Amino acid sequence: MNRRELLKSSALAALSLASGVAAAATPAAVGRLDLARSAFVFIEFQNEWLDPAGPLNRLMKDRALFESAVSNSAAILARAREASANIVHAGLTLAGDPDYLVFAGGRGKSGLKGAIPGAGTWIGQDRVRFPEPFTPRRGEFVVAGRSGASVITNSNLDPYLRNNRVDHLYLMGFALHVCVESTLRHAHDLGYEVTVVSDAAPAFTAQQQEHVIEHVIHHFGRSVTTAELLAGLAGERSPA
Amino acid sequence: MNRRELLKSSALAALSLASGVAAAATPAAVGRLDLARSAFVFIEFQNEWLDPAGPLNRLMKDRALFESAVSNSAAILARAREASANIVHAGLTLAGDPDYLVFAGGRGKSGLKGAIPGAGTWIGQDRVRFPEPFTPRRGEFVVAGRSGASVITNSNLDPYLRNNRVDHLYLMGFALHVCVESTLRHAHDLGYEVTVVSDAAPAFTAQQQEHVIEHVIHHFGRSVTTAELLAGLAGERSPA
Amino acid sequence: MNRRELLKSSALAALSLASGVAAAATPAAVGRLDLARSAFVFIEFQNEWLDPAGPLNRLMKDRALFESAVSNSAAILARAREASANIVHAGLTLAGDPDYLVFAGGRGKSGLKGAIPGAGTWIGQDRVRFPEPFTPRRGEFVVAGRSGASVITNSNLDPYLRNNRVDHLYLMGFALHVCVESTLRHAHDLGYEVTVVSDAAPAFTAQQQEHVIEHVIHHFGRSVTTAELLAGLAGERSPA
Amino acid sequence: MNRRELLKSSALAALSLASGVAAAATPAAVGRLDLARSAFVFIEFQNEWLDPAGPLNRLMKDRALFESAVSNSAAILARAREASANIVHAGLTLAGDPDYLVFAGGRGKSGLKGAIPGAGTWIGQDRVRFPEPFTPRRGEFVVAGRSGASVITNSNLDPYLRNNRVDHLYLMGFALHVCVESTLRHAHDLGYEVTVVSDAAPAFTAQQQEHVIEHVIHHFGRSVTTAELLAGLAGERSPA
Repeated sequence: MNRRELLKSSALAALSLASGVAAAATPAAVGRLDLARSAFVFIEFQNEWLDPAGPLNRLMKDRALFESAVSNSAAILARAREASANIVHAGLTLAGDPDYLVFAGGRGKSGLKGAIPGAGTWIGQDRVRFPEPFTPRRGEFVVAGRSGASVITNSNLDPYLRNNRVDHLYLMGFALHVCVESTLRHAHDLGYEVTVVSDAAPAFTAQQQEHVIEHVIHHFGRSVTTAELLAGLAGERSPA
Repeated sequence: MNRRELLKSSALAALSLASGVAAAATPAAVGRLDLARSAFVFIEFQNEWLDPAGPLNRLMKDRALFESAVSNSAAILARAREASANIVHAGLTLAGDPDYLVFAGGRGKSGLKGAIPGAGTWIGQDRVRFPEPFTPRRGEFVVAGRSGASVITNSNLDPYLRNNRVDHLYLMGFALHVCVESTLRHAHDLGYEVTVVSDAAPAFTAQQQEHVIEHVIHHFGRSVTTAELLAGLAGERSPA
Repeated sequence: MNRRELLKSSALAALSLASGVAAAATPAAVGRLDLARSAFVFIEFQNEWLDPAGPLNRLMKDRALFESAVSNSAAILARAREASANIVHAGLTLAGDPDYLVFAGGRGKSGLKGAIPGAGTWIGQDRVRFPEPFTPRRGEFVVAGRSGASVITNSNLDPYLRNNRVDHLYLMGFALHVCVESTLRHAHDLGYEVTVVSDAAPAFTAQQQEHVIEHVIHHFGRSVTTAELLAGLAGERSPA
Repeated sequence: MNRRELLKSSALAALSLASGVAAAATPAAVGRLDLARSAFVFIEFQNEWLDPAGPLNRLMKDRALFESAVSNSAAILARAREASANIVHAGLTLAGDPDYLVFAGGRGKSGLKGAIPGAGTWIGQDRVRFPEPFTPRRGEFVVAGRSGASVITNSNLDPYLRNNRVDHLYLMGFALHVCVESTLRHAHDLGYEVTVVSDAAPAFTAQQQEHVIEHVIHHFGRSVTTAELLAGLAGERSPA
C-alpha cells in the first residue's frame, strides 16, 4: 500500500466532518465539530523531533510521511488559531530533571523509562523548545508534569480539559504508534472522544502507520485526514 | 514470518529469565523474577472469549495462535499457583450495568465504548464467568471497577498492587493489540515494569501479533515466551 | 453552636439555588442547577451504616444529626427520581475480597486500609446491601471498584461521569469528615464542581460537622441545605 | 488546648519511631523508618507562603505554630540531606499559565480553582521560588504538573515514587488542613503509607490543627513530631 492508498483508506474509515450532517444517535452525529468542547492537541512539536540534526528526527524513516505531517499540522494550527479554538501543546520536558530522577535514572528500567535516560534526550533547554509556528502563544495551554507516553497520564492536561468542559480531543504529532497511540488509548478509557488526524501524526514507517490506522484506531476513536478536518473547521469560530 | 519464526523473534528480544544472571545496571538485571514483587495478570479469561459459541471467540482468526495461548496460560497459572505467586484475574464485567450507563449507553461513542453496547457483550452472567482452570480461587485477586481497555485504569488493581508492593506485571490474555497492549502502555507510564508473555497473549491475526511484538513492546516493557517464563518460575516459591 | 445554628451557618455559606439568578462570572452563576450536567451521589447508604445493630452505626454519636441526614437524603432521592436526574449509588463492597487482598490483608497498614480489615467490615453480603429506599433501581449507576475513602478514586465513577458529560456532583452520605470529604477534595482536584448537602452528610459529632462546614468545604466547593436543594430541584426535569 | 498540649496529643497518637522495635505484623512494625522506601515531601516551601509580605503568609494566624513549623522543617531537611534520603519539593507553580487556563480562568469555579485566580497567586516568578534552605538541590525531585490541592494528583510525583519504589511519605508544609490533608487522603487511597509531621505542617489556627490531628489523620495514616522523626533518622543513611 503506497502513501496515497494509505490516506484513502484512512478517509474511508473516517467520519465525514465536512458533510455537516448530524443525524441523531448515529456515529456520524458526534462527528460534527463542536469547537467549545474540542481541543487540538499537538504532541511533541519540539526540536527533539523537528530539528534535522537531532537523534529522534532520524527515527522518522519515511520522510514524505514525516514532512507532510509537519506541514499539515502547521495548517491545522493556523486554522485553529483563527477559530480561537482550544489549543494544547503537549510536549515532553525533563530539563528540570537532568538526572532523570522520575525514572530512577533509568536503572534497570525497560521501555521509554530506560531508553530516554540511555539516549540522553528531552533534557536540553534547546532540544525541548517548540520552534515556530508551534511556539505556544498566550491563551494556548502548555502541558506540564507529563512523564509517560500518554500526554494525559499524570499531567495537568486532564484537569484543564474538565475545567474547560472539553471532551473531544484531536491528536497531531509524534510518533503515531508510540505517544500518540498511548494518548488515544488512555483518553478513550477516561471517557473522551478522540480523533487522530491520520496524516498529521506520523509513525516511523508507512507500515507502522498502516497498522495503527487499520487495526488500532477504531477500537478507541476515529481518524480524519487534514483535508477533512480543515473542511470541518471552515467557518467555525469559538463563541468564547 | 510464520508462527515459529514469530516465537523465535520474541525470544530474541526477551530477557533470559532462566539464566539467573543479574549483572547490576543492565537491562537483564531486572529480569530475574522476584516473586514477591511480581503479579501474574490474566486478562479476560472469560466465556466471552473462551466459549467457541461466543461472538468474540470468532474474532480470533488465527486459531493455532489462540489455542496455544489458552493452553500456555493454563500452564503458567498452574505453576504460579504452585509457587503461591500473586495471581490477578482481570476480567471485564458489566453484568451490574445492563444498560451500559458507564458508556452513556454507547450513544454517539466511538471505540469500545460504542462497540460494546452495540454488540451487547459483557453483560450476561454466564458470559462473564471465568471457566476452569481460570476460575478465581481464594487468595487470588479479582479486579473490579474496570471499564476501559487497560485493566489498570480506574479499577482496584493499582491500589492492590501498591498495597502489596508489587511493581512487575506479567501479562497474559485477550487480545494482544487491544486490552493487553493498553494495559502494557498505561502500566509503563505509571512506573511499572511490564512483561508480556508473547505466546500467551494472542492478537486476532499473526500479522497483528507480529506488529505488537516487533514495533510496540520494547517501547513499554519486555516480552518472554511461556517456556522462558516457566523456566524462570521453576523452583521459585513466594516466602509469604 | 447548636444544630439549628449549624444549619444556618451552612445556609449562609451556600449558593442560593432557588433564586435562579445567574449573573455571569459570579460564583452564584454556576449555582443554578443544571440537571443534565449534575449527578446526585449517595455515599454508603448501606446496612453497614444504616442498620442500628451494626458497628459503624454506633460511630454516629450525634443521633439527631444522623437521623435527619438519612431522612433528608431519602427526600432528595425521591425528588431526584421524579426529575429523572443522574443518580449514583457509591457504596463500598469488599464481599468479593473477604481476605482484604486489596489492602494486603491490612498487615502493617495505617488508616482505613488497616482499620477495615481489623474491624471485619464491608465483606458481609447482608452488610453491604442498600436498604430501601436507597436500593438502586434500573437506570441508576452503582459504583464498582472503589477501595479508598474517595468514591471517585480508582473506581468506575469518573468514566461514568465523563461519558455522561456530568461535571457537577451533589454529595450525600457517610461520614462527612471521612469519605464524603475525601470525595469532595479529590473531585475538586479533578476539575469537578462539588456541592455538599450539609444536613444530609453527617459527621460522627456536631463539632466535627462544624469544622468541615466552616473550615474545609469552601476550599473545595460549596454547601447547600436539603431545603435549598429541594427548592432548586422543584419543577426541574431532565430532558433525557 | 495550648500548643504544648497539642504537640503532646500528637505524640501520644504517633508511632514510636525512635524505639526501633519492629514486631512483625503489628502496626508499630511499619513505623521503623526504611530510608530507601521513604520520601520526605516538602509542600509549598515557597515565597508565596514564606515571605512575610505575601498575602498567603497572613493566613497563618497562629504565628508560633507557623514559625516553629518552618524551623522544624528546615531541621528535617538538613538531616534528610545528610542521610541522602529521597527528598521531594512539592510546590505549586502556575507561572507558565498566567491566565489560569488550567482552571478555565476561575470563571464560575468554586474552591481553590476559583479562589487562586481571584487572588492572583502562584503566577509570579519570584512568588513561586523556594527560598533557602528549601531551594531544591541536584538529586532532589521537584514536582511538576500539579494543579490541585493534593500534590500527588495529576502530577509527576506518583510515577517518581513508583519508579523509585518509594511507598512511605513523610509530609511537611502548608497548610495542614488544605493541601497537606488532601495529599494525605489521596495518597492513602492510592496505597501509600503516609506520616504527617504534626509540628512541621501548620494549619491557619491551633484549633484547625487540633481537629486534623485528633479527627482526621488516624483515618488515613499516622503522625509524628519533629523530635520523633529526627530520632528515627539518627544514624540512618541511604544505601544508594
